[in-house]
Amino acid sequence: MSLLVVGSVALDTVETPFGTIKEGLGGSATYFSTAASFFTDVQLVAVIGEDFPEEHIRFLKERKVDLEGLERNMGKTFRWQGEYGYQLNEAKTLKTDLNVFELFRPKLPTAYTKAPYLFLGNIDPTIQLDVMKQVVAPKVIACDTMNFWISGNRDGLLKTLAGVHILMINEGEARALSGEFNLVKAAKVILSLGPKTLIVKRGEYGALMFNDNKIFAVPAYPLESVFDPTGAGDSFAGGFMGVIAQNADRANISDATLRQAAIYGSVMASFCVEAFSLDRMRSLTQDDINRRYLAFKDLTGYEYTA
Amino acid sequence: MSLLVVGSVALDTVETPFGTIKEGLGGSATYFSTAASFFTDVQLVAVIGEDFPEEHIRFLKERKVDLEGLERNMGKTFRWQGEYGYQLNEAKTLKTDLNVFELFRPKLPTAYTKAPYLFLGNIDPTIQLDVMKQVVAPKVIACDTMNFWISGNRDGLLKTLAGVHILMINEGEARALSGEFNLVKAAKVILSLGPKTLIVKRGEYGALMFNDNKIFAVPAYPLESVFDPTGAGDSFAGGFMGVIAQNADRANISDATLRQAAIYGSVMASFCVEAFSLDRMRSLTQDDINRRYLAFKDLTGYEYTA
Repeated sequence: MSLLVVGSVALDTVETPFGTIKEGLGGSATYFSTAASFFTDVQLVAVIGEDFPEEHIRFLKERKVDLEGLERNMGKTFRWQGEYGYQLNEAKTLKTDLNVFELFRPKLPTAYTKAPYLFLGNIDPTIQLDVMKQVVAPKVIACDTMNFWISGNRDGLLKTLAGVHILMINEGEARALSGEFNLVKAAKVILSLGPKTLIVKRGEYGALMFNDNKIFAVPAYPLESVFDPTGAGDSFAGGFMGVIAQNADRANISDATLRQAAIYGSVMASFCVEAFSLDRMRSLTQDDINRRYLAFKDLTGYEYTA
Repeated sequence: MSLLVVGSVALDTVETPFGTIKEGLGGSATYFSTAASFFTDVQLVAVIGEDFPEEHIRFLKERKVDLEGLERNMGKTFRWQGEYGYQLNEAKTLKTDLNVFELFRPKLPTAYTKAPYLFLGNIDPTIQLDVMKQVVAPKVIACDTMNFWISGNRDGLLKTLAGVHILMINEGEARALSGEFNLVKAAKVILSLGPKTLIVKRGEYGALMFNDNKIFAVPAYPLESVFDPTGAGDSFAGGFMGVIAQNADRANISDATLRQAAIYGSVMASFCVEAFSLDRMRSLTQDDINRRYLAFKDLTGYEYTA
């Protein structure tokens, strides 16, 4: 079943201790839709400028991402520039040029309004809410946000959250949104704002999923070489929502399905960080994904009885 | 089977955002032996001064810890003073008075020299090596260390590590010891120094165990109230080694046993941080431990097939 994502498509310039990439393919919606495309049909809503390279369009088409909702407007494509130290968890943003993204007010193609699954990437909560309203009968709505909106458009964010089923944010964002430092307390506050499920992303430490008084700990896959963490969170979200959409026929999403989705999220994030931009996704196969999913079993499994 | 621990017994003054304790029972060997006492017989090798309160001796006796190796020397007991902010992972040491601990050169009681299981708490590696040599036929030797020894007595530490089976250190120590930032690379270096198993402790994020090219991710139990993280690492080690000692009849310790031991380690650490000093251990029951072990299953378990 179709999974609709709205977010950014960008050209990223990134420096890590292991190398530099200039104007590589990036953006939350790009990472999300590429990761999700290994599991389900994806409809992409985003904006690019006149200068957006055709090769990136070709890549997304090869991944069978539906691009009817990808607007091309006058002006330049959104650009982000950042750098990471050895502590790869924290990006330092050097420059953000919103360009065409600044005035982006998404209007969904008619076909998209029937999407049962929806991911609202990290954009202005007021726009997230507007997109939500354009979808006729969504089954599951997930979203991301950031401190800029938590402090800058809190009212808008609270309105969006009231209609959202799954929120995926990082530790600092969970603390800022809830006003609680302790994550278990933070989760209780956030789950009272609307979402039924909260996923707290913790970078190289994985994620915690809070759902119905249950907590699920998902590790990040320990890699010998983490090349560039850009897009890991969106790749997690893409793998997660891809698996949720795969289970479309189920009336209610069970805790078991949410847990599997979270593991696949971590699987997709682990591939994302192995190379710059979306480069690892270019050669990724279903077999690679299956093998790493199995490796997670080995990473977390133990026998209960001695 | 008997588990011998050598380390510190101290009086700790600790300030956290949630309260203060003055000269509470502390020390690596105290936390270790108390946690281990729920699983096996423990022999404690440490030193206290003339001022060490009798009530603490009574507590350790109630936990059935063998105190023949607890020396009482002229002078004052080791004292440590530290504080934590909301980021409970990092203690700031305000004061360390080694007192009688400074000249401590452990001489094992004859009965102790036959201990099959040995934990070398975080003390001078030269003393760790000396204790190792006093034990006649150890089956499993585990140890802890810290950056002070990694930079200050590296040669001594390398000699100790050559004879150690299991090393338990934190992320920063693994990086300092190996010279590698990436933990998978760091583990390879460290496992070439002697230990067959490396446990990298990550505070509220749990631990990673490296063993025979396998990695096991152990989460920390997400608690709504973390009161005082002092002793969590030693409680982890105590629970871990207690379970290893319980499986004494096995010729080789299997990966399955190591994984169970690591979960029990995390269980004991989770109780430790719920109160100041060893206070949570005073009322802890076998039932509490079993229930939390079950809760870990719920925290980490998922079905493989969709």
